[in-house]
Amino acid sequence: MTAPLSIRSIRWKGGKLSLLDQRKLPDEVVYVEQSSAATVAAAIRDMQVRGAPAIGIAAAYGLALEAQDASEADVCAKLAAAAERLVAARPTAVNLSWAVARVIEAAQASSDPRRAAVEEAEAIYAEDKRMCRAIGEHGVKLIRPQAGILTHCNAGALAVSELGTATAPMYLAHDAGVPFRIFVDETRPLLQGARLTAWELTQAGIDVTLICDNMAAHLMAQREIDMVIVGTDRVTANGDVINKIGTRSLAVNCKYHDVPFYVACPSSTYDPFTASGNDVQIEERPSIEITGSIPTVRGISARNPAFDVTPAELVSAWITDKGVIDTASGLERLR
Amino acid sequence: MTAPLSIRSIRWKGGKLSLLDQRKLPDEVVYVEQSSAATVAAAIRDMQVRGAPAIGIAAAYGLALEAQDASEADVCAKLAAAAERLVAARPTAVNLSWAVARVIEAAQASSDPRRAAVEEAEAIYAEDKRMCRAIGEHGVKLIRPQAGILTHCNAGALAVSELGTATAPMYLAHDAGVPFRIFVDETRPLLQGARLTAWELTQAGIDVTLICDNMAAHLMAQREIDMVIVGTDRVTANGDVINKIGTRSLAVNCKYHDVPFYVACPSSTYDPFTASGNDVQIEERPSIEITGSIPTVRGISARNPAFDVTPAELVSAWITDKGVIDTASGLERLR
Repeated sequence: MTAPLSIRSIRWKGGKLSLLDQRKLPDEVVYVEQSSAATVAAAIRDMQVRGAPAIGIAAAYGLALEAQDASEADVCAKLAAAAERLVAARPTAVNLSWAVARVIEAAQASSDPRRAAVEEAEAIYAEDKRMCRAIGEHGVKLIRPQAGILTHCNAGALAVSELGTATAPMYLAHDAGVPFRIFVDETRPLLQGARLTAWELTQAGIDVTLICDNMAAHLMAQREIDMVIVGTDRVTANGDVINKIGTRSLAVNCKYHDVPFYVACPSSTYDPFTASGNDVQIEERPSIEITGSIPTVRGISARNPAFDVTPAELVSAWITDKGVIDTASGLERLR
Repeated sequence: MTAPLSIRSIRWKGGKLSLLDQRKLPDEVVYVEQSSAATVAAAIRDMQVRGAPAIGIAAAYGLALEAQDASEADVCAKLAAAAERLVAARPTAVNLSWAVARVIEAAQASSDPRRAAVEEAEAIYAEDKRMCRAIGEHGVKLIRPQAGILTHCNAGALAVSELGTATAPMYLAHDAGVPFRIFVDETRPLLQGARLTAWELTQAGIDVTLICDNMAAHLMAQREIDMVIVGTDRVTANGDVINKIGTRSLAVNCKYHDVPFYVACPSSTYDPFTASGNDVQIEERPSIEITGSIPTVRGISARNPAFDVTPAELVSAWITDKGVIDTASGLERLR
C-alpha cells in the first residue's frame, strides 16, 4: 500500500473509527478513536470534524459502529436512536441527514442490517473518494509548471474523504512532480485558510505562501497568481457559486486582472432546483467571531456574512467529477 | 470655543505638547506630555504617534519645545542637534524630514530663532488643519443621506492634525446632521481599521460597522455600500494611487459593482515627478506581522506587501483641498 497523497481526517480500519480533531490544528495533530455514534455526534457538534462531506461520512461510520455492536434483535432500534442523535448534532448540514438516511435505508432494506450499515458507510466514503479523485484528474490538466495558484478557505482533504475538492488538482500535480506554488488566503474571521489549508498542503510538501485576504489583487497585478481554484457549498441552476465569504471579491479581481477563476464542484454540490444565487439565503453569523479575535472597540457592531454569491459570468470553468465544464448550461450533465 | 469635530492626537497649548499614545488604542486613551525633542523622537520611533502628517507635526513641535527651553546663545546648536535626532527616528517618512527642515530654516532666517521655530511649528499644524478641512468641505457634498460608506485602514484624524483626510467628509457630514453609516475594513495584518478608524469615528458618535477585508464585495452586491472613500500615501502624475494593501481590490470591486471610488488626497500627497504607480517600489514587510498574530503553521512563509497601486482608471474622483477632481489630468492643479 502506498502512502496517501493527502492527509485523511477520517480513518476507518478493521471496524475502528478515528477522527482528526480539527479544532487543535495546526498546533496538534490528534486522532481520537470513537467508541459509538454518541461520541461521533459529539465530535460533529463540537466541530472536531467539519466540512460537509466529512460530517456525512463520519456520521455514516458512527452508524456502522452502532451496527457492529448491536445484536441481531436490537440493531434496527439502535440505528434509529443513533440516527436521531447524529442528525441533531448539526441540524443544517445537508450531507449529514443525507448520509444518515442512506445508511438507515440500506440497513432496513437488507436481510443483514448490521453488515448492510457498515457496507453503506464504506460506500459513502468510497463514492466521495472517487468524486474527489475525478475532480483532481480533470483539474490537474489545468495546472502548468511554475504556476502560482490561489485558494481560499478550506476545500481540502480535511473537509472530505481525501484529496479535497479545490485541492485535489494540487495534490495530483504535486504527485506528478509538477512544480507550482500555492497562495492561501487567511480567510477571516475563522482563518480556515491559515489554520487548515496551509497545514494540510504543507503536510504534503507543497510550496505554500500565506497571504491576508486583502492581498490577492496586488499579487494578480504583479502576475504572481496565474489561477484561482476555490471550492463551493452550492452551485445553482444558472451556475452561480455559493462559497465562503471573500470568494466573490476574488472572482471580480480575476476578471479585472484576466486570471482564470475555477470552481471545484462535485456533482453532489450542484443544485438544479434553485434558479440562481439570488434565491439563496446567506447565513449571517455572530459579530463576536470577528470582534472577539482582534483588538477593536468594545461593543462595536460587526457584519459577519459567512458566504457570498459569485455570479456564473465570473467563473472560467467548474472543475467537476464529470469533467471541466466551461459554460453554465453544461452543468446539466451533473444532474 | 466649540468642541472639536474629531479627536486630536497632537495637543499643543500654552507651550506644552501632549501626544496620544496610539499603540494603546482602542483599549486606553492616554495623552503623554513631552518634555523635549528627545521624548518626541522616541514617541515617533516607537510609533506612539503614526501617520505621515502627524509625525511631521509632532517633530515640528518637538523642535518648538527645544527652542522654548534654549537660551538665545545656544538655540541654533540645540535645534540642529534635535533635528538630527528627530529625522533619524523614522528615516523613510518624507513628512518628517520636510517638517524638520521647515522649522530649522525658519529659525535660521529669523532674528528671533526661538519665536520663529515655535511659529513655524504652529504654521505647519495650521496648514495641515486647513488642508483637512478643505478636503472635508469639498467631500461632504458627495455624501447623501442614508449613504453606506466604506473606508479602509486609517486615513483619519489620528494620522493628521484633525478631521483626517478620508474621514474629513464624514466628520463634517455628521456635524451637519446628515445620517449615514460607515463600514470599516479591519485592514489585516495590522488592523488599523479595527483599532484606529473604528475607534475615532465611534468617539465622534458616528454609526460604525466593522467588517473583514473579504466582505466588501458581498455588501456591494447587496447595495449596502454606496461609496468608498480611502486615503493615499502618494498619487503619481498619471493619477495612480498608492495606498494601504487592499485598496486595489476595493477599487476593482467598486468598478464591477458600479460603486463610486473616491480618494481623499491633500495637495501635499500629489507627486508629479513620478510618472505612474509602476514606478513606485512597494514595501514588503516581515512575515511575522501576519503569522505572529494568528494561529497558523509554524514557520510558514507569508507575503506581506504593505501597499498596493490602484490604477487611475478605477478612481471616480480625487477629493483634494483644492476641490473634487474627476480626471487625472485635473491633478495638475495640485502642483
